[in-house]
Amino acid sequence: MIVGIVGLGLIGGSLGLELRSQGYRVLGVSRQAATCERAIIRGAVDAAGVDYSLLATADLIFLCPPLQAIPITVAQLLPHLHPQAILTDVGSVKGPIVEAIAPLWPRFIGGHPMAGTADQGIEAAHLGLFRDAPYILTPTPTTPPDCVAAMTAIIEVLGSHLYTCSPADHDQAVAAISHLPVFVSAALIASCEQESNPQVRKLAQAFASSGFRDTSRVGGGNPELGRMMAQYNATALGRSLRAYRDRLDHLITQLEAQDWDNLEAFLTTTAAARPAYVAPHAPPSPPTHQPGPAGGGL
Amino acid sequence: MIVGIVGLGLIGGSLGLELRSQGYRVLGVSRQAATCERAIIRGAVDAAGVDYSLLATADLIFLCPPLQAIPITVAQLLPHLHPQAILTDVGSVKGPIVEAIAPLWPRFIGGHPMAGTADQGIEAAHLGLFRDAPYILTPTPTTPPDCVAAMTAIIEVLGSHLYTCSPADHDQAVAAISHLPVFVSAALIASCEQESNPQVRKLAQAFASSGFRDTSRVGGGNPELGRMMAQYNATALGRSLRAYRDRLDHLITQLEAQDWDNLEAFLTTTAAARPAYVAPHAPPSPPTHQPGPAGGGL
Repeated sequence: MIVGIVGLGLIGGSLGLELRSQGYRVLGVSRQAATCERAIIRGAVDAAGVDYSLLATADLIFLCPPLQAIPITVAQLLPHLHPQAILTDVGSVKGPIVEAIAPLWPRFIGGHPMAGTADQGIEAAHLGLFRDAPYILTPTPTTPPDCVAAMTAIIEVLGSHLYTCSPADHDQAVAAISHLPVFVSAALIASCEQESNPQVRKLAQAFASSGFRDTSRVGGGNPELGRMMAQYNATALGRSLRAYRDRLDHLITQLEAQDWDNLEAFLTTTAAARPAYVAPHAPPSPPTHQPGPAGGGL
Repeated sequence: MIVGIVGLGLIGGSLGLELRSQGYRVLGVSRQAATCERAIIRGAVDAAGVDYSLLATADLIFLCPPLQAIPITVAQLLPHLHPQAILTDVGSVKGPIVEAIAPLWPRFIGGHPMAGTADQGIEAAHLGLFRDAPYILTPTPTTPPDCVAAMTAIIEVLGSHLYTCSPADHDQAVAAISHLPVFVSAALIASCEQESNPQVRKLAQAFASSGFRDTSRVGGGNPELGRMMAQYNATALGRSLRAYRDRLDHLITQLEAQDWDNLEAFLTTTAAARPAYVAPHAPPSPPTHQPGPAGGGL
C-alpha cells in the first residue's frame, strides 16, 4: 500500500515516519522544495516533491495542510488521483471540511488525530506522536465501508485509539474541550489587563503563580490557530461560549446573593466531574470502537 | 527574638522550620495535641501546646489558622500577649482581616506569603517554601513603623520578595490572578458537564487533553477553599468576575459578527500580555520594596 502525504509539517512528517517504520511506502508533497528535502533526509518519506502528480500511485492520501488550505489543496490534487484512492484529512474541525470535500471525492473520510506539540514543522516530527492519542473518524452514511476499514487499519498501526462519530458531534465535543478553553483563558488574561488601577495590575503581574499560569496558558497561544478554531467551528464554539456564559452568570448571581453553601456545592460538583476529562484515557469502550480488517481491501 | 505560630499546618510548620534554622526560638500552638507532637518531632518548633498561654513571651506571632478561624483565634489569643507583641496573619484575603483585627490589636500587620503546595498539614511543611515567592504586607496609616520593620527583616530571612500595598489593592490583585481563575476554570468544567447530548459529553471526556487539563485544574480544586475566597473576597472577586464577563460578552459578539480579524488581533494582545504575569518574577522594583532594619527594634 502506498501512502501519500500532502503537507510535511509536524503531523504529516510524523505520519510518514510512523508508517515508513511499519513498512509502508510513503510519498510526500510540500509547497516548499526545502521541506521535501528535509523530509527525505529525516526519513519521513521515500520520495517527495512539490508536484501533486507524484501522488498518482498513492492508495491513501493524508491531507495535512493548515485547515484553511484544505479545499484549495484538494482542488489541485484531485486531477492526479487514481479512482480508488482514499482521501482523508487531519483537520481539527470536521463539519465544514467534510461538507466541502465529500461531494468532490466520494472516497473521502474526515479524520482528526488529536496529537500535537508546541513545536511545529518537519523538524518537530517524531515517532510515537499518535501513540495512545484519540484518532477520530467522521464517516457519513455515504462513506464507502472499505475507506473506513482502511483508515481503521492505519490508525491501529499508529497506536491511536479510534473513535467514530458524526462531524457535528466531533465539532461540538472539540469546541467544548479544546476551542472553548482557548477563549475562556484568553478572556482571563484580557480581564486582568483591563484593570484600571495600574498599581493593582502591577501587583497582579507580580503575584500571579501556578493557578494563573495554567489557566491562562492556552489563551496565550498562537493567535492564528485560535482564529481558525473560531472561524471554522463558529457554530459549535458559539454554542459552547453561550453555555459557558450562562454558567458564569449563574456563579455571579450566587456570589452577589452571598449564597456560599450553593457556591461550595457547585465547586464540589466541578471537582468531582473533572477526573472524567483528565484521567489517563482508556481505549474507548466497544460501541464506539470499530475494529476493522487489516487493510486487506487495498 | 521569640516567634510564636498559631496553626501548625503547611504554612505555620514551614515558617517554624525556616525560622528555627536561622536561630529564632519558635513556640507553636495547635488545637490538636498530636499536631504539636509532630511539629516538635519535625523540628518546626522548640515547644508547642494547645494553650495560648504558651505564647506569653512571644515577640512576633504568626496567625496561620484557616481564614475563617482568624477572628476567633485572635479573640482567644489576645489576653495572653505581652503589650509589645507584634501580630501578623498569613491569610489570602486582607481587607476583612485587617478591618477585624487591627482595632483589637494596634500592633497587628496583615501579611500574605504567596506560597503553597497541593499538600497540606504539618507533614507537608518544608524548608524553602517561601524562597523567591512574593510576601505581601498590608500596613495601614496607623501601623507602627517598628512592626513593619520587624516583618521586613523576617521576610528577608525567609528569602521572599517583599511587596507592600493597601489591603484593598492586595485583595483586588489576588482576586484577578488567584481567585478569578478558580471560578473561570470551574465554569469551564460545569459548562462541559451541562452538554445535553450524552454522546457529545462522552466524546468531550475522551478527547480532552492538555489544554483542558491546564485550564480546568484550579476549577477542580478544594471546594472549601474556593468558597472562602468568594466569601472573604466577595467585593473584589465580584468586580473581577463582572469585568471578565464583559470581556467574554465582547468575544461572543465578535464571534457572532464573524469579525475574525479583530478576534485574531485580540488573541495577539493576550499572547503578548501573558509573559508579564508568568515570567519568572524578578524582585520588585525599588518603589514597592521597603528595605527595613534587621529587626533591631525587638
